Amino acid sequence: MKKESKENNFVETKYYNLPKDEFFSLESGVNLKELKIAYETYGKLNKSCNNAILICHPLTADAHVAGYHKADKKPGWWDNMIGPGKAFDTKKFFIICSNVIGGCKGSTGPNSFNPVTGKAYGLNFPVITIKDMVNAQEKLISFLGIKKLLSVCGGSMGGMQALQWSVSYPERIFSCIAIATTYKHSAQQIAFDEVGRQAIMADPAWNRGDYYRRKNPSAGLSVARMIGHITYMSYNSMEKKFGRILKKDDFGYGFSPDFEVEGYLKYRGDSFVKRFDANSYLYVTKAMDYFDLQKGEKLSNAFKNIKSKFLVIAFSSDWLYPTVQSKTIVKALKMNGIDVTFCEISSNYGHDAFLLESEEQTNLIKHFLKNIKK
Amino acid sequence: MKKESKENNFVETKYYNLPKDEFFSLESGVNLKELKIAYETYGKLNKSCNNAILICHPLTADAHVAGYHKADKKPGWWDNMIGPGKAFDTKKFFIICSNVIGGCKGSTGPNSFNPVTGKAYGLNFPVITIKDMVNAQEKLISFLGIKKLLSVCGGSMGGMQALQWSVSYPERIFSCIAIATTYKHSAQQIAFDEVGRQAIMADPAWNRGDYYRRKNPSAGLSVARMIGHITYMSYNSMEKKFGRILKKDDFGYGFSPDFEVEGYLKYRGDSFVKRFDANSYLYVTKAMDYFDLQKGEKLSNAFKNIKSKFLVIAFSSDWLYPTVQSKTIVKALKMNGIDVTFCEISSNYGHDAFLLESEEQTNLIKHFLKNIKK
Repeated sequence: MKKESKENNFVETKYYNLPKDEFFSLESGVNLKELKIAYETYGKLNKSCNNAILICHPLTADAHVAGYHKADKKPGWWDNMIGPGKAFDTKKFFIICSNVIGGCKGSTGPNSFNPVTGKAYGLNFPVITIKDMVNAQEKLISFLGIKKLLSVCGGSMGGMQALQWSVSYPERIFSCIAIATTYKHSAQQIAFDEVGRQAIMADPAWNRGDYYRRKNPSAGLSVARMIGHITYMSYNSMEKKFGRILKKDDFGYGFSPDFEVEGYLKYRGDSFVKRFDANSYLYVTKAMDYFDLQKGEKLSNAFKNIKSKFLVIAFSSDWLYPTVQSKTIVKALKMNGIDVTFCEISSNYGHDAFLLESEEQTNLIKHFLKNIKK
Repeated sequence: MKKESKENNFVETKYYNLPKDEFFSLESGVNLKELKIAYETYGKLNKSCNNAILICHPLTADAHVAGYHKADKKPGWWDNMIGPGKAFDTKKFFIICSNVIGGCKGSTGPNSFNPVTGKAYGLNFPVITIKDMVNAQEKLISFLGIKKLLSVCGGSMGGMQALQWSVSYPERIFSCIAIATTYKHSAQQIAFDEVGRQAIMADPAWNRGDYYRRKNPSAGLSVARMIGHITYMSYNSMEKKFGRILKKDDFGYGFSPDFEVEGYLKYRGDSFVKRFDANSYLYVTKAMDYFDLQKGEKLSNAFKNIKSKFLVIAFSSDWLYPTVQSKTIVKALKMNGIDVTFCEISSNYGHDAFLLESEEQTNLIKHFLKNIKK
């Protein structure tokens, strides 16, 4: 039954290109002459065009949020939440997910062809921000004929984009779902990102971003990913999953992994480099670090034009995007009289919880979406 | 006044060498034919030889715990705690601190001359453990004519050594002070260490540990240190010290540090590589990861032969060595009827608090040392 459903429901990545006579203005002031956005859709857009939901992806994910590509062994990265009868019910809603600008999964980014130089951008790619990602998504949404999204939803960096949507395009969304996210990166969040970037840039193969026809800086990128993984798990989830289990019984000469947790991190780091571009990692983490809706003022000021209803979800053991950041968002929304539902889900999974705790999130989101007035 | 005191009190590092006809047995079964221990002392050993206190150093510190060397601009690493009238009052006590075996500050370690090969050990240096560090210290203590230490004290990895002393040599210490430490490394603690090691080993200059006559793996070691620094601070101390302060006002092209916290981490990483050996970082972090007094049994079993009085100190914002680990130690000691004082000091400094919160620690330690029955 499951297999049949898989075969009947292959999804494909589609591409939107900015019309040739237009350019795309970035927050930095730079104009991009070409803009391509990779995206996927699930379900059908209704005649009123008011059942569309945009899912924004976290740091290392992409447009392939659900279902199977023909060659896939595993479904998209949030398949437990998107599909018939699921939280984002594809029998009711038209779901869109696009790869962020600056990414490396089909949207314009540092590994794209630079029409000016005739080779990949590398570090000639301009600095991008969360606002730029959202502006690119707005181009796609308009192209798809959608004036107003029923909802925009994301976890982690996806949540930043969802928040930015509510601030940049208050008239274009009915609701916003911000999960395990923040309104600005803290010093600690910047610090973890920076160490990842330093690990990449310390790799001689990085070659100041100019490596596309050579060896990739995979050693550095792998270390960056390993750092990330520790921050995505909680003290307790690591303890429960690995504890002090040894891969072998004796001392590990030569510093090969001898604890299970070491082997796991190395495996995750080495897998990651096969699917992600090191320069994208630099650009996208930097976009997160620049993200700051507060800008030294009261956060409630930034939210004063918001028109959408909100659902804010945090997770008890998420120490990378701690609950206090979500609560600050909720408070600033409430101060503007915005209709906001907040829930801290009790979970041991740390930041990864937003990808894993599907049952409680499904209940919350289903109910939330049911009650949005269009 | 301060300057005069500095000039009158220069300290020097001394060296103990294992007698030529002896060898030093490691926990791994390997015998070292040579063993040198760098150490410093402060104050005077009394005639009864019962006023000696051993300070055990954390990961990247060394024997120079207090006072000034002739060329020093800054005093030893715990000078706020050791000296006349301080917590460890050198008018009353004879203080000893030695560099751990496996270290790079004068004691035998991977950068030492290997008599077998005629060049530096590198990865031919055997695996070492916290127990090996303590066994080496015991040789030094015996050489100094001390049968029983008034106290053994340490923070972080120093605390592991102090605990190991109480287990390995219950008859040789009157008391033990374990600060911001654990009885075994958790999966998360192992994970952070492992990412640091991977950063070093990802540096091509590391050359499988054989770099002593070439370029050092400073890029990798710097990244390892940066990771460490994040874990030594708390979310709040980073936020207070750096927040989102920018080094410059515009976007940071080329990914040079543009937030203050990035510049700080880079500076600390780059300073560290001038004073520390990358192979030592591998060996000493691995010794911490192997540390496990519990060994799959009840921790109270490991403590059943302990005879010393205990002071256990934790810090409220220390998430690297969280209070729960100290409480587990206290509980296991109490179950053996051991006289233990426990205090969680309220601090924003994270794990670094043991180096910074001198006032409260001084009060606790002074009182504790006053009441030890010899």
